[in-house]
Amino acid sequence: MKRPERETAEGILFTDEYQLTMAHLYFRMGLHEKPAQFDHFFRSYPDYGGHQAGYCINAGLEWLLDWMEQAHFRPEDIDYLEHQTGQTGSRLFQEDFLEWLRGNGSFSGITMRAIPEGRVVHPNVPLTVVQGPMAMAQILETPLLNHLNYQILIATKAARIRESGRDKLLLEFGLRRAQGKGGNAGARAALIGGADFSSNTGISHVLGYPPKGTHAHSMVQAFMALDMSELDAFQAYADVYPDDCLLLVDTIDTLESGVPNAIRVFENLRQKGHKPVGIRLDSGDLAYLAIRSAKMLNDAGFSDCSIVLSSNLDEMVILQILTQISEEASRYGVDASHLIDRLVYGVGTHLITSWGEPALGGVYKLVAVDRDGKWQPAIKISESAAKTPNPGHKHVWRLYDQRSSATADLLSLEDEDPRQMDTIVLRHPTDHTKQRSLDQAGIAEVEPLLVDVLQDGQLVYDLPTIDTMRERREADMGRLDPGVRRLINPHIYHVSLTPRLWQQKQELIQQARQQSR
Amino acid sequence: MKRPERETAEGILFTDEYQLTMAHLYFRMGLHEKPAQFDHFFRSYPDYGGHQAGYCINAGLEWLLDWMEQAHFRPEDIDYLEHQTGQTGSRLFQEDFLEWLRGNGSFSGITMRAIPEGRVVHPNVPLTVVQGPMAMAQILETPLLNHLNYQILIATKAARIRESGRDKLLLEFGLRRAQGKGGNAGARAALIGGADFSSNTGISHVLGYPPKGTHAHSMVQAFMALDMSELDAFQAYADVYPDDCLLLVDTIDTLESGVPNAIRVFENLRQKGHKPVGIRLDSGDLAYLAIRSAKMLNDAGFSDCSIVLSSNLDEMVILQILTQISEEASRYGVDASHLIDRLVYGVGTHLITSWGEPALGGVYKLVAVDRDGKWQPAIKISESAAKTPNPGHKHVWRLYDQRSSATADLLSLEDEDPRQMDTIVLRHPTDHTKQRSLDQAGIAEVEPLLVDVLQDGQLVYDLPTIDTMRERREADMGRLDPGVRRLINPHIYHVSLTPRLWQQKQELIQQARQQSR
Repeated sequence: MKRPERETAEGILFTDEYQLTMAHLYFRMGLHEKPAQFDHFFRSYPDYGGHQAGYCINAGLEWLLDWMEQAHFRPEDIDYLEHQTGQTGSRLFQEDFLEWLRGNGSFSGITMRAIPEGRVVHPNVPLTVVQGPMAMAQILETPLLNHLNYQILIATKAARIRESGRDKLLLEFGLRRAQGKGGNAGARAALIGGADFSSNTGISHVLGYPPKGTHAHSMVQAFMALDMSELDAFQAYADVYPDDCLLLVDTIDTLESGVPNAIRVFENLRQKGHKPVGIRLDSGDLAYLAIRSAKMLNDAGFSDCSIVLSSNLDEMVILQILTQISEEASRYGVDASHLIDRLVYGVGTHLITSWGEPALGGVYKLVAVDRDGKWQPAIKISESAAKTPNPGHKHVWRLYDQRSSATADLLSLEDEDPRQMDTIVLRHPTDHTKQRSLDQAGIAEVEPLLVDVLQDGQLVYDLPTIDTMRERREADMGRLDPGVRRLINPHIYHVSLTPRLWQQKQELIQQARQQSR
Repeated sequence: MKRPERETAEGILFTDEYQLTMAHLYFRMGLHEKPAQFDHFFRSYPDYGGHQAGYCINAGLEWLLDWMEQAHFRPEDIDYLEHQTGQTGSRLFQEDFLEWLRGNGSFSGITMRAIPEGRVVHPNVPLTVVQGPMAMAQILETPLLNHLNYQILIATKAARIRESGRDKLLLEFGLRRAQGKGGNAGARAALIGGADFSSNTGISHVLGYPPKGTHAHSMVQAFMALDMSELDAFQAYADVYPDDCLLLVDTIDTLESGVPNAIRVFENLRQKGHKPVGIRLDSGDLAYLAIRSAKMLNDAGFSDCSIVLSSNLDEMVILQILTQISEEASRYGVDASHLIDRLVYGVGTHLITSWGEPALGGVYKLVAVDRDGKWQPAIKISESAAKTPNPGHKHVWRLYDQRSSATADLLSLEDEDPRQMDTIVLRHPTDHTKQRSLDQAGIAEVEPLLVDVLQDGQLVYDLPTIDTMRERREADMGRLDPGVRRLINPHIYHVSLTPRLWQQKQELIQQARQQSR
């Protein structure tokens, strides 16, 4: 795409056609400016093929806001709609609607609350709550989901990979395997969720983190094609980057050629007073090669050199590598925990795609419409109870127990405040037989999770830095029960409704069933 | 991101840091302008969890070329590199290199050959061949892979879904589940690979295909929250779009409410002389609901209304739905093949993410460097023979047998032409015991697959339209053996080397092994 085409494809028309046909219908019905509320939430944690997450990390809001600020119906967008035709060749969108879009086709009427980026979040909890004129709030559905679903997915995967790597340095390497420009959103989300740095130069620059990377196999190959050797390539690299010398050792043979050559170059560096950074292993049995390489590096006096692992890593592969190192390192005369401490993880494809579950099923559901100045709850009955959204304008609370552990997220009606309740009753969202009562005495803190972000299109929120988002993530992870946090078969975190919200939902379901007869 | 940040993150720095550190090293060694050749290829077909593809569809080239045309080192990019520091705080990139980038930091020196978009392609065949000054050809690696890998992945998935849907109308619905702006690249690739239309409005506009879509559950919900009914919502939709009336029937209950209400509205339309388009099923047992809905529509005289299916479809789900319809339709008084002919598939998440294999492992490998005006082949030895790239400057040929069926892709040395050979010997790329001989008499056509695209940065290629790409795909699919084309356990298509290329590769591997000692 050339630039003007890209601006069209990434502007207000970056939405599904049915949002526009519905907006037009609302206009015809006189409903287009009626205030409506949509909740954005996901229904279940990503499940990467047998190992499901126990939490997600929220992300993507700032980029959504940036998009919303720019996006509006430009004359050329309106012109396009004017020329859209239906099956019989007649116009799909009438002139009066287009005229309305000319004057009102922006997100200046949108009010938004959201859970901040970086926070731990759970299913069926509204993460983003949109209120605004029905037509524009409807058009926002697709771009909102596009911006938020993917970043939540990747922040979550990054948090899990960081967890499996025991909080050691984690690098995001996935740009070449991303969905085009989406790789930038993925890198950002990875940085929020758990990656320390990214190899993606541009986005690292924009976000203020130094990009990471050294060299590829092609450098060694180029030297060899010119009748030089791997050792020559390594030495050349060391000459140019004497204080940043990290060498990829598997172009020819890791243990027979790569590591011995790296050690020779490191020895030269040491003689000149430089400290080599380390080696990278990118193929083969990584745990075994890491142990054998560590032994060779240790014997040569480079016991603090990093060993970067890459090649199709994810949280399960890292778990396996660390298990294998723990079991086998001592046999080769290597201290397992010392080796584990010097590992660095470079994760590409499996992080940027969230391999195993490459999309988050986040949805954006109408939960209320304005009637005479009050929010009238709306419901969608679904064949499975779990898929029926929680209706109405709601508050979201997180309850912490006396150990400061998050014990549940609670959805309440707008006029309820669990801080005022003597006993907090938590109802299971779908199973009517399940409920829990918490004494206020057992509750250390009740935290409202949603913050005001937009008021009639105006930003009323101090956008946090990525460092702040990371601190929030770390704090929230620290307050998760270890059972919820674990990588395989985590405990189910409770997301509950107050009895009044629960009751309202049941009544609406009954009403809807009757209404449809 | 704001616009200037986006331009930085999507410009020349949309690459991995190590490409820049390597380019700088080549500069230091005086190798930065030495002509080098990189081949882009993939090593294996996507395997979506037990069912591996037997072919891929090439895509993405035009968008890569658009990116290359724009991308260059702007003063602000150079400024950023100037301020990058290493571990000890000293500059990573020296001034003379940056000065060279200022004058030479674009892709104006790149020559490229490629297999056109829309064509069927196979593993280990160079799809894109890049020649140019080593520094800039190296920097191109990441963006090239980013642009091409994803579009090939999605074009391939779309072709498979179309195949399983027996060539019926296929709609791409995935924008909300894509990786941010990557959703546009995905929609384009889907249109090349097999989707007829997309719901993504902006990209449909840019590419010249009408976007598709009608309404969502939220429209019905909004009416219900305002004390109106599903029937009212359907009737309102029909009033606004009398000739484009396609109704989503599962908001309340598909068979009890949605379909009967749709039929009532369709009857009103018919009375007024309009032809209703159809219904959409988005949840539940789609085959069963399609049969029951078809029966109700048929009985009401709407036997030519479309039935659009959506909700987590992919090629396997469609296969199951069609099997189930074939087995069960007659039991409900519905003709299975008539029903299958009226189905339309709306595929979102599983298409836009290529669920099951969400990345193509395409690579970009140095295969030759210039030495005294000649291409000196370069090799990377890999632990597995299959991962060792085919070295040197090569030609790519497709051989068709007397039935016009593609029988093999053949890689040859630059000075070889199989059209001049009496007998064509095909050597297996890794298994030295396997080879096949073809008499020229048995070969109907030998087609060179690579076309000239860029000559020293200048476009020397007529960019085809997407319609042309689709015709190429259909023609190529038609010339695939049905065994290769099938969805599960396809036959393996032969990709072979000429004996001379095979011999050269063995010699280089031996040389590299010796050199490394």
